[in-house]
Amino acid sequence: MSTENGYFSEDQSAETVIARNADCTNPRLKQVMEVVTRKLHEAVKEIEPTEAEWMQALQFLTATGQICNDWRQEWILFSDVLGVSMLVDAINHRKPDGGSENTVLGPFHVANAPQMPMGANICLDGKGEDMVVSGQVLDTEGKPISGVRMDVWQANDEGFYDVQQKGIQPDFNLRGVFVTGDDGRYWFRAVKPRFYPIPDDGPVGQLLGALGRHPYRPAHLHFILQAEGFQTLTTHIFDPHCPYITSDAVFGVKESLLADFQRVDDTARAEAFGFTSGWYWSVDYDFVLAL
Amino acid sequence: MSTENGYFSEDQSAETVIARNADCTNPRLKQVMEVVTRKLHEAVKEIEPTEAEWMQALQFLTATGQICNDWRQEWILFSDVLGVSMLVDAINHRKPDGGSENTVLGPFHVANAPQMPMGANICLDGKGEDMVVSGQVLDTEGKPISGVRMDVWQANDEGFYDVQQKGIQPDFNLRGVFVTGDDGRYWFRAVKPRFYPIPDDGPVGQLLGALGRHPYRPAHLHFILQAEGFQTLTTHIFDPHCPYITSDAVFGVKESLLADFQRVDDTARAEAFGFTSGWYWSVDYDFVLAL
Repeated sequence: MSTENGYFSEDQSAETVIARNADCTNPRLKQVMEVVTRKLHEAVKEIEPTEAEWMQALQFLTATGQICNDWRQEWILFSDVLGVSMLVDAINHRKPDGGSENTVLGPFHVANAPQMPMGANICLDGKGEDMVVSGQVLDTEGKPISGVRMDVWQANDEGFYDVQQKGIQPDFNLRGVFVTGDDGRYWFRAVKPRFYPIPDDGPVGQLLGALGRHPYRPAHLHFILQAEGFQTLTTHIFDPHCPYITSDAVFGVKESLLADFQRVDDTARAEAFGFTSGWYWSVDYDFVLAL
Repeated sequence: MSTENGYFSEDQSAETVIARNADCTNPRLKQVMEVVTRKLHEAVKEIEPTEAEWMQALQFLTATGQICNDWRQEWILFSDVLGVSMLVDAINHRKPDGGSENTVLGPFHVANAPQMPMGANICLDGKGEDMVVSGQVLDTEGKPISGVRMDVWQANDEGFYDVQQKGIQPDFNLRGVFVTGDDGRYWFRAVKPRFYPIPDDGPVGQLLGALGRHPYRPAHLHFILQAEGFQTLTTHIFDPHCPYITSDAVFGVKESLLADFQRVDDTARAEAFGFTSGWYWSVDYDFVLAL
């Protein structure tokens, strides 16, 4: 009855609010707000917050907006640490069986990274442990794909991207674009990336702390793979030995994205790659693009 | 399996995020975040937002925080228009059968309004349609309660509170505190309040517009009733003939809070009350305080 007459009752609270949108002329917005209202009221009814708790929640949500500026987006961070960014990514990039899985783009992609020949070293400052990354780009039937544009970027051995250390790292350090030939193979040289924290000096960092969670993302390399006639793949590959591999602060790790990071102690092969340390990391990972 | 190893999967998304709070030492926060995460993931799975829609949602939530300042709290407004403020109020102020129902305090209460003798006119500027408000304060067994402190405040005939029109309305216009005697009766003079809009020039107002909703609160009077040994009652009484009575923008109206607003065309009685217009509104409402 309350739903029909518009008056509030605890029992019919969500229904009364939803009924108020009867004149909404945007069917998608109407549907979204119907679900949001229903789930929100379900949550409040299950939690039964005190008035002080509800005010504390509203203050947290307010502070999360207030810390945002041109270069900091705390709401995306909040979405990330609640696993919602990954969920939205997963919903929008479901791959057919055998297609490599997507993961989030993240904030550190830069357009117009230089195109390089296969085998190039994307590490421009010589810092870190040498690494060779290689593999093949295949279709779901196992055939090599030619002409794949592979955009790669990664943090350095201290866990920083070039754009976070302007003037310390060279521009476009640890970034490159490679294009596959007929064999679908790729390879390039780099350095082993390190884990790094998401910004944790704001409301989201305080929440993580209160939840007993750390702010770290496990070591990874980013890829965007584009080829005509295939779905674009935005993903990472991860170091399975990273201490944070099972506890990514933003839930970016999917089991299928664990790569094989092998330490190769072979002076001759290291020298052949131009590495002077006598050893290097070898990472092998094949990508499968879905139609 | 994803839940146990910490890796993300669409199926187990909420479980994986919730499991990450295992080390949280605050059991209430842990419980709250478990429910919030579960309901949030349920909502996202039901809505299946595009990435553009999710970004639009995050931008809305950011803007809602960014417009807040010392005198404007858009997040409370958002909570209000989604019916959540009323739900939290209802959860925290469930009254036994027969007890008058609570509604939200709202932002216009002012402490230290002047105490007045019964029958006083709280309208200090003579503007508006005269009104007499009267009734009795009773316990749930129907016995009058003596010594009830009744704090009253209302908007004027143009829908503004004194604090919104400093320098236009006298300070403490349409506010007063009354204390009941042994008969539990109260009465005072005032003017008929008008409906008014909530602030609708921000993100919440834009959302209301997009949903085909208006921003108005129906005409009402606010009350806080306090008496030793009884639960404090924070409520409004409403004019059932107000055009917005069934569509309060903040869902503050409960059916039991509709008062009887009677137009009395009786020159002699009007004059006895000191009204020169020859007629007045008579409002009768009894309050029942719960133990």
